[in-house]
Amino acid sequence: MKTAAVIMAGGKGERFWPTSREKRPKQFHSLTADGKTLLQLTKERIGDIAQTEDIFVVTNRKYAELVREQLPDIPVENILAEPVDRNTAPCVGFAASVIEKKYGDAVMMAFPSDHLIKSNTLFRDTLKDAVDVAETRDALVTIGIMPVYPETGYGYIHFSKNGGNIYKVLEFIEKPDFDKAKEYFDSGEYLWNSGMFVWKTSVILNEMQKFMPVLMEGLERIKHSYRTEAFDRVLETVYPVFKSQSIDYGIMEKITNLNKVYTIPGSFGWNDVGNWLSLERVRPIDKNNNALQGNVVNIDCRDILVRGNEKRLIALVGLESIVVVDTDDALLICNKENTQDVKRVVEFLKIHNKKEFL
Amino acid sequence: MKTAAVIMAGGKGERFWPTSREKRPKQFHSLTADGKTLLQLTKERIGDIAQTEDIFVVTNRKYAELVREQLPDIPVENILAEPVDRNTAPCVGFAASVIEKKYGDAVMMAFPSDHLIKSNTLFRDTLKDAVDVAETRDALVTIGIMPVYPETGYGYIHFSKNGGNIYKVLEFIEKPDFDKAKEYFDSGEYLWNSGMFVWKTSVILNEMQKFMPVLMEGLERIKHSYRTEAFDRVLETVYPVFKSQSIDYGIMEKITNLNKVYTIPGSFGWNDVGNWLSLERVRPIDKNNNALQGNVVNIDCRDILVRGNEKRLIALVGLESIVVVDTDDALLICNKENTQDVKRVVEFLKIHNKKEFL
Repeated sequence: MKTAAVIMAGGKGERFWPTSREKRPKQFHSLTADGKTLLQLTKERIGDIAQTEDIFVVTNRKYAELVREQLPDIPVENILAEPVDRNTAPCVGFAASVIEKKYGDAVMMAFPSDHLIKSNTLFRDTLKDAVDVAETRDALVTIGIMPVYPETGYGYIHFSKNGGNIYKVLEFIEKPDFDKAKEYFDSGEYLWNSGMFVWKTSVILNEMQKFMPVLMEGLERIKHSYRTEAFDRVLETVYPVFKSQSIDYGIMEKITNLNKVYTIPGSFGWNDVGNWLSLERVRPIDKNNNALQGNVVNIDCRDILVRGNEKRLIALVGLESIVVVDTDDALLICNKENTQDVKRVVEFLKIHNKKEFL
Repeated sequence: MKTAAVIMAGGKGERFWPTSREKRPKQFHSLTADGKTLLQLTKERIGDIAQTEDIFVVTNRKYAELVREQLPDIPVENILAEPVDRNTAPCVGFAASVIEKKYGDAVMMAFPSDHLIKSNTLFRDTLKDAVDVAETRDALVTIGIMPVYPETGYGYIHFSKNGGNIYKVLEFIEKPDFDKAKEYFDSGEYLWNSGMFVWKTSVILNEMQKFMPVLMEGLERIKHSYRTEAFDRVLETVYPVFKSQSIDYGIMEKITNLNKVYTIPGSFGWNDVGNWLSLERVRPIDKNNNALQGNVVNIDCRDILVRGNEKRLIALVGLESIVVVDTDDALLICNKENTQDVKRVVEFLKIHNKKEFL
């Protein structure tokens, strides 16, 4: 059976403002020292488990050109351009429909485009196991990550203790409050939901039929129009009507018969690069715990993260625990404890209609 | 007797990097909301006590054009351009010599060009008293400032308790260590040395003859060449040979007969704008003690000082007690406790030959 990969590349990455902008969100930037964008790194690591011609990218229409530029060897018809954002459920459904139309029933792996992975080898082996389970058992497989602290920004997966290296899912849980997160973290019986899924197109579309029948009607129309002249027009008509829904909330959490739902804990070194602080784990750090990039003069600073360009000079004196991101037209200086609040800057800019900085 | 004013405008203002640069130091910038440069404000407040044609400016040759631009009504021959910097003793001597050549013996007031004064009225009245004492008693008069904290960066003046509003000077003291500064501050018997002096040209040149005879020889040559074709050439020959010396160290601290040395405490609201932190006292402040200038988005910051332009966006999140100065090609972010260390940035740039940022 054909194995296809889907890269979900429609996100906005607002917490990475001012580098991430409406015109060029986070996944189209390089955040690591190798100069490759997050999207390119995602495609590269998938290269071991899917043929290039079987890799699909779902993105907002306005980023289709960026995807073509950054992934020139992906077939243009594999770049699936959404007219509007409707979160991951329609995105996964769109890809599943197109893949089924193209190949018939196939195994489909879905990946966020803006994560970092330490070991491509371990990643490949984990995904191969997932593909095997999805194909042989008609299973819905999610990749889980053993928590390293009680994060409240992720969904959690409660998993059964029995199962070799492949575990039955007992429950999917929405982003918990801190006390719950702490409880899950301490128990060792919960994994973070990484947002990576593997399943047959027939299996996921069957679940969509059950829990999101309106979405399925639209997907049927899209499927029939794929590779015809009507395709763009149908997308234009159907997509805006879709409810904005995540695949977790719309499908995974609603599945009552969990017999076919599995999770595989990934030990490949996962970083969702959720905010500027998470870059600390991937940038070179000096003896005072500073991660400095750009034309920087550092006088007595500790524990700071700086991202500038090679032109403008950034002089830093006596600072501790802050993040500095300097771009051509905008500068961010943020306490490390408040990197989640970068979203509030973006909100402020929207409210005050400062579009040029969005 | 003629009263002339001398503005000393040759300083580098390195602690105000990156606004203050070699090409345009601090005194040629506006740091206040009114948009006037420190030099212009200095000239403006002197306007009440000296005729415009009697105001002289001593500056480095490379800033003569800037002085002409910013003070267009000052006679060009009153702009005294030093070929090299030699601190305040040669600067004062140069001005005294030229003034004496032009007017014969005259009262001369000398002012730094980079201070701020709250009340021009009180300033004027204080200076009038100083001029009167200097003229009638052949006195050397310095303007003192009652300390508001034990600053270690200023010289101190120990003054006699007897004297109406004009006090005898008992001793001039170099920048003290903290314990000494604390002692002076607590005693109430010491004033800060503001660097503003009033005396007859004959009186100060007489002291220079005693304590800096080599300087006097050169000044005689300059004096004789003033308003002749030889002037520039003489300056070029004589000035580089002068020892770099402050008027405080070279003359004031060496005077043994203090009978003719007076100080008048100025209550006009003095701010030497010695580093970025001192701007807090002159910029409008919001309810969280932030002084913000420029295109700033402030999310939960307290006690910060920001100076940007109106174009580049500066977004600040969760910060406390820092100074941000953003210019076209360089950015400074500094802990408020370390504003004196901005000089270290400038030193670093010199050592690493990054001239474009100096």
